[in-house]
Amino acid sequence: MQSEPPFPGRPAPPGRVRADNARVVADVLRRAIHDGAIDEALDERALIDEFNVSRNTIREALAALTDEGLIRRSPRVGTHVVARKLDHGLDALQGLQETFRRHGAVRNVVKIATLVDPPRLVARRLRLDDAQAVYIERLRYLDDEPISLDITYLVPDLGIAVLDHDLESQDVFTVLEEVAGGRLGRADMTVEAVDADPHSAAHLEIASGSSLLLLERLTHLAADDRPVDLEYIRMRSDRIFLRSTAYRNEQLP
Amino acid sequence: MQSEPPFPGRPAPPGRVRADNARVVADVLRRAIHDGAIDEALDERALIDEFNVSRNTIREALAALTDEGLIRRSPRVGTHVVARKLDHGLDALQGLQETFRRHGAVRNVVKIATLVDPPRLVARRLRLDDAQAVYIERLRYLDDEPISLDITYLVPDLGIAVLDHDLESQDVFTVLEEVAGGRLGRADMTVEAVDADPHSAAHLEIASGSSLLLLERLTHLAADDRPVDLEYIRMRSDRIFLRSTAYRNEQLP
Repeated sequence: MQSEPPFPGRPAPPGRVRADNARVVADVLRRAIHDGAIDEALDERALIDEFNVSRNTIREALAALTDEGLIRRSPRVGTHVVARKLDHGLDALQGLQETFRRHGAVRNVVKIATLVDPPRLVARRLRLDDAQAVYIERLRYLDDEPISLDITYLVPDLGIAVLDHDLESQDVFTVLEEVAGGRLGRADMTVEAVDADPHSAAHLEIASGSSLLLLERLTHLAADDRPVDLEYIRMRSDRIFLRSTAYRNEQLP
Repeated sequence: MQSEPPFPGRPAPPGRVRADNARVVADVLRRAIHDGAIDEALDERALIDEFNVSRNTIREALAALTDEGLIRRSPRVGTHVVARKLDHGLDALQGLQETFRRHGAVRNVVKIATLVDPPRLVARRLRLDDAQAVYIERLRYLDDEPISLDITYLVPDLGIAVLDHDLESQDVFTVLEEVAGGRLGRADMTVEAVDADPHSAAHLEIASGSSLLLLERLTHLAADDRPVDLEYIRMRSDRIFLRSTAYRNEQLP
């Protein structure tokens, strides 16, 4: 572990190691790549100057971003941005196809779409007593790349009609609004970071154990605020990041 | 890979394996644990009935939740919930101490707090021309457990005064509002899931490669909407989940 000052002219705090600086450099660069503030080439010399750290620290940061698939380093060509993550707004409730319209075509491989007796814990959230629920499992692609593995439970009065629609090329939200004859309103969401289990990893074509975003989302009809759609969504975090705006003391704009 | 029907009485879809069902069971149970819908004991027999899956599927799901530290299985005592994740609201902009007030005491180990020449990419986001920035690195504990590793850049006119305050026991937000003599307003956030690098993992006392939540947050003053605080926050996802509400077509309540 090599010790280096956080910035020139200052003594290194105890325990300060190159990896700590490399992490900060990678964080700042990652975000700048997402934002398009870095468009193409990354120059090692310029980064050393910009961040006031050693060449080895810059190399460690660039190695991390290479592992994440954001940049590529090649001997003669240098270091280039090769991928930007897709920006998924958390505040506006949209299906994946609506969200990524400008980035490519979303298509869905429907693995299961059927009526089930839902687990009691699911039934309770959808306010179903003894009723069945519609259960849909989809692997979702943006162009040729799998980006999301989605489990959906729907209330039966709408869900059964949803099953008659084309779910390969349409968002469930779109179909659900068509069937309900009205808009969806609010969704309660939680977000976690989870390790990809071997099967999710195989579906999503990533390494087992990779970090995934796991969203749970309960969506309500606008008209009567009835919960109608409960989803568990695993998103590839190497391809997608979530964006949101927060307000102090729950002020709203 | 053992094939099993998703639900009794139906043929197993091609490629359907136990792991797919176990993942769904784990997702439903995980969320129910977070919500307090499952408070204490989990009965294997009851779960088999509830989810209509095999004993092995339930065991696989419970093994996943055990690995995540949410439940504990012991020979005579059975399966119990031992931890619930902390609920971190994304919509309301709060410091960690404000957020977890009811769960315990947040204290901060301040690893670095100093003036720096910020990287150009950071300076641009904080609208600093050639000015310096205040740089703070903190490891944050809830009681005795490290939960978050935070990097903070502050604008100098407020940040230098922040350095004179007690940052071990106070949120930066609280100090910043005191120094500014006014409230913070809006924050722009992104959320990603990232693998813990070895050093972050050591700081946070988790396994290297574990999934972490990475938040980038740019916070503005309420009065003039000036960006004053840029943070890169690594949160332990085994201890914290994020909660948010979304609205269709950017409706607001």
